[in-house]
Amino acid sequence: MVDLCLLGCGGGMPMPFRSLSASLLNFKGRKILIDCGEGTQVSMRMVGWGFKSIDVICITHCHGDHIIGLPGILSTIGNSGRVEPLTIIGPEGITEVVNGLRVIAKYLPYEVNIIENPKEVNLSVNKESLEVINENGQIKISALEVEHSSPCLGYSFYFKRDRKFSLEKAEENNVPKVLWNKLQKGNEEVITYEGREYKKEMVLGDERRGIKLSLITDSRPQDQMINFIKESDLFICEATYGNNGDIEKAIKNKHMTFAEAAKLASDSNCKELLLTHFTPAMLEPKLYEDNAKNIFENTIIGEDRLIKSLSFS
Amino acid sequence: MVDLCLLGCGGGMPMPFRSLSASLLNFKGRKILIDCGEGTQVSMRMVGWGFKSIDVICITHCHGDHIIGLPGILSTIGNSGRVEPLTIIGPEGITEVVNGLRVIAKYLPYEVNIIENPKEVNLSVNKESLEVINENGQIKISALEVEHSSPCLGYSFYFKRDRKFSLEKAEENNVPKVLWNKLQKGNEEVITYEGREYKKEMVLGDERRGIKLSLITDSRPQDQMINFIKESDLFICEATYGNNGDIEKAIKNKHMTFAEAAKLASDSNCKELLLTHFTPAMLEPKLYEDNAKNIFENTIIGEDRLIKSLSFS
Repeated sequence: MVDLCLLGCGGGMPMPFRSLSASLLNFKGRKILIDCGEGTQVSMRMVGWGFKSIDVICITHCHGDHIIGLPGILSTIGNSGRVEPLTIIGPEGITEVVNGLRVIAKYLPYEVNIIENPKEVNLSVNKESLEVINENGQIKISALEVEHSSPCLGYSFYFKRDRKFSLEKAEENNVPKVLWNKLQKGNEEVITYEGREYKKEMVLGDERRGIKLSLITDSRPQDQMINFIKESDLFICEATYGNNGDIEKAIKNKHMTFAEAAKLASDSNCKELLLTHFTPAMLEPKLYEDNAKNIFENTIIGEDRLIKSLSFS
Repeated sequence: MVDLCLLGCGGGMPMPFRSLSASLLNFKGRKILIDCGEGTQVSMRMVGWGFKSIDVICITHCHGDHIIGLPGILSTIGNSGRVEPLTIIGPEGITEVVNGLRVIAKYLPYEVNIIENPKEVNLSVNKESLEVINENGQIKISALEVEHSSPCLGYSFYFKRDRKFSLEKAEENNVPKVLWNKLQKGNEEVITYEGREYKKEMVLGDERRGIKLSLITDSRPQDQMINFIKESDLFICEATYGNNGDIEKAIKNKHMTFAEAAKLASDSNCKELLLTHFTPAMLEPKLYEDNAKNIFENTIIGEDRLIKSLSFS
């Protein structure tokens, strides 16, 4: 199961009535934060999922409404007692920006590693942390360069489902009973026992479909997105303007309308669409719900601190 | 008249129930902001005094809870249509920190001038802006280096009261009637008319007491503060801990208790004391009110967006 909390659903400027767009993912107790505008840590405190367990922060781009909260949250994570390294992933230029902002968070009790403009990042899931590994991560983060007025990444997160234990295979491969649990659930790929090697594969059933969650913000829609977000269980998409008539503004400011986000979800056969990043001028996004639902029925209009749980199907 | 809005009264971290300590001064429609933590601009938006008219930002020190909101507020001021230069005043190191944080607010439609670690800054008050001048400002800002774990300034603001027109002096000095209003209210110190020079002084009555407002935050109490804040109409003081028993924490973290702030106000003969910068752990600062009031009766416990108007006496 993956839990998502939409920490805020506003774009542009933090408002008294709406937090800035940011998302928090929880997988087996470990957390990934996506974007971090001014006030994101306040919304996180209201949600109460904790700070210490944030292992990865993905930044879509370096506009203030997506990153100003970073130095504050790094400090608060430091105050929470974290000592394990933390990974920041972001677009071209992220290293310079993070180092600039860290002028007021120079000394942290943990290491900050920055991965600039990757195509893919693999994470292993451990009790203490999510750890960046070379391949075959239990979580795979893919990044796509999208079209905005500064380098900007869309993200897709694939959470692998644990494979079932296969009694049939274990017996077929003559795996001693004492190794069954260790091979299925342990981190070792191969265990040597009484002079023979036993592989994880020998006790595992078929691969099962995982959970795919994608997020695109601050971009015009693009054809390349269709494949990137394809068949997401949840597609979180910016939808700055509700009114179809605001299409000119959307083009000029490199954002999307509700209808454009819905078309992306529909074309890519996503299961569910969650709209966010509403312009401060749009006080009641729900008024424009039909502009999305007429194109993609399974649309949710984002609200601050809305929580969704995604189950392995 | 000077209006003060205490935008927030919290220290350390922004909390859902309390904004970070920051103050906004309004004098003749022009604004001075003191400190700018994460979320200060949200509190400002709730108050509704506007962004475009912020001419000066005084930063006490470069800890996150006093400065993280700066790049966001600079952007928002830019969006408000401001083109007049803006002045940032701060302690030693402020230039490096502002330049670091501006990595995400590089391009602003107005100039930002930084005054690092000054003793005194004079401001003239114009309709369009407060302008930094060499001496004799209608507003005089004094700065005092105080004791914290990073360079930190206390501030004192003196707002001069306009002098009355003196008919007696104008007639005694044979000032032509046509010049009376111009000399009293205009910006020119000297006007030449029909071959003779007339000075402002020739039509003005006695100097009158102005308004003094002082602010000390993030420091232990010090003897040198007594003279600096002396006879303030309003003294805004950090009071991180309400309980007298927290004195050891106050010493260790270089902060003050309610009682210590009250003693400063009493020793310096201030008229009124406003306490702020409460630790997030103190949920109900009013419970500790008596610890201050027993020492200095005229104490106000700060609340987010509390407004005080100070009149010329």
